[in-house]
Amino acid sequence: MAHIYDRVALIGLGLIASSMFWAMRRGGIVAEVTGFARSAETRDTAREIGLCDVVYDDIIDAVRDADLVVLCVPVGVMGSVMQQIAGALKPGATVTDVGSVKRDVIAQVLPHLPEGVHFVAGHPLAGTEHSGPRSGFAELFDNRWCLLVPAEGSDPEAIARLRAYWEALGSNVEEMEAEHHDLVVAVTSHAPHLIAYTMVGVADDLRRVTDGEVIKYSAGGFRDFTRIAASDPTMWRDVFLTNKDATLEILGRFTEELFALQRAIRQGDGDHLHAYFTRTRAIRRGIIEAGQDTDAQDFGRGGGRKP
Amino acid sequence: MAHIYDRVALIGLGLIASSMFWAMRRGGIVAEVTGFARSAETRDTAREIGLCDVVYDDIIDAVRDADLVVLCVPVGVMGSVMQQIAGALKPGATVTDVGSVKRDVIAQVLPHLPEGVHFVAGHPLAGTEHSGPRSGFAELFDNRWCLLVPAEGSDPEAIARLRAYWEALGSNVEEMEAEHHDLVVAVTSHAPHLIAYTMVGVADDLRRVTDGEVIKYSAGGFRDFTRIAASDPTMWRDVFLTNKDATLEILGRFTEELFALQRAIRQGDGDHLHAYFTRTRAIRRGIIEAGQDTDAQDFGRGGGRKP
Repeated sequence: MAHIYDRVALIGLGLIASSMFWAMRRGGIVAEVTGFARSAETRDTAREIGLCDVVYDDIIDAVRDADLVVLCVPVGVMGSVMQQIAGALKPGATVTDVGSVKRDVIAQVLPHLPEGVHFVAGHPLAGTEHSGPRSGFAELFDNRWCLLVPAEGSDPEAIARLRAYWEALGSNVEEMEAEHHDLVVAVTSHAPHLIAYTMVGVADDLRRVTDGEVIKYSAGGFRDFTRIAASDPTMWRDVFLTNKDATLEILGRFTEELFALQRAIRQGDGDHLHAYFTRTRAIRRGIIEAGQDTDAQDFGRGGGRKP
Repeated sequence: MAHIYDRVALIGLGLIASSMFWAMRRGGIVAEVTGFARSAETRDTAREIGLCDVVYDDIIDAVRDADLVVLCVPVGVMGSVMQQIAGALKPGATVTDVGSVKRDVIAQVLPHLPEGVHFVAGHPLAGTEHSGPRSGFAELFDNRWCLLVPAEGSDPEAIARLRAYWEALGSNVEEMEAEHHDLVVAVTSHAPHLIAYTMVGVADDLRRVTDGEVIKYSAGGFRDFTRIAASDPTMWRDVFLTNKDATLEILGRFTEELFALQRAIRQGDGDHLHAYFTRTRAIRRGIIEAGQDTDAQDFGRGGGRKP
């Protein structure tokens, strides 16, 4: 395959960046990948496991001559990283990001964008509860969506090339307007994460049930919540602070709905509960049919089958 | 292995009963398994796939001569099923159940228990989001907990034999008092399920984000919620109606905690959020260390690894 970009720079070397590297290598779609991470420990780990062709100690060296610079840092620091690298960017280069929030990131980045450099915001909808340079794997983006959010007046060629790049990493790509993006992910990701964090915290606080018991007997729904709640704390803090309005709107609706179900339980209204649960089950079927998850038993965790 | 019971009757042939049958067959731990389900369609399916040695059309025939009768029906009908079969139970037989609530089930069953028959309530902490006679598999209980809740004055020998039976199905067994059981599962399972149902319902209601978008872009936390929310509606309706007090208590605490996190988001209190998320991450680590889940990447759903 012809190279889509000659040189790609990954800034920040966590789960997403490391998966991007292994997927780029798998596809043979770029000639060279440079990397930078703020922490010396992360850079050492990256060098040890062969993550990136070169890992630089200086962010300026990493982005120099790059045709594509991918900002894989927490959403809260996108603007300051952009400010740092702006002077070293090659004319004609494209900068993108992988942050979970788009309105705020675009507002942080655009003021620092040099003339002749393109910025096309992006968000791959893929992840695990693991983080750090060792957590990546080439298949992370396979058949997942990557949402591109081009700023007004973005260069169509730069957008098309970035789209081809994400497709080569295994993703399906869609373009979306920033505000709509932030609402969609508030529903499908941000509010669910906050709720999972909350429930895990409640369980931990409950003194009449010991932590040991919570952990021991967590085979049911709680186990799935703890997976979600194990995600990177810094990343999620920044997500909630920068997608405040949409997240708070969804949480407000959630609370209303939860109160209605609580009232049905208190009043013994079984019909209300049954109808509600039947509806949510149908939504799940839709997700399986849309190919966003498998129908595997035991939550797909390798539970066996009858012979 | 010597047979732990000669004849076991499974009443209700869904996920748990069918998994018990395949696990009994795998272990060779009983001589004969009879079955009954209220629905003719379920009985036909069971016969078609070889679930149970004999499937009876009459519940009385299924329990006659059984040494162990396992009630695998929704929690709301345990009492009426017990009333139906009481006259046909063999003296010395043990009756148990697999319901997710124990105080209410014990209160329903005990009034109908004939002299000379033992009742030892039980609850295997295992499941998937699938239901019905085709959903079972022999490994469902492997290394999961089964909680036994003997009524006061239960026969120690009957308890010991039921414990040996569940251990032979692959479970770890613990005894627990009914009220404490109901609180523990309210935290680890019932409240998380209600919350997942709620969030899935909210997403579906939101008119500015289409169902198609919710489903398409559900790779994040929402996907795990929909798995939980796909569980059997009748079973869960009964769980919430019969474990009302403990569930409402936990939901009350959950709401308090959620309000505190919402306030932190609104006020931009990043330190509060970061500290909270760091704590929940540690709880997740505890669960992995306790062996209740795997540390597999991609939420264990068969995501690949880098080469």
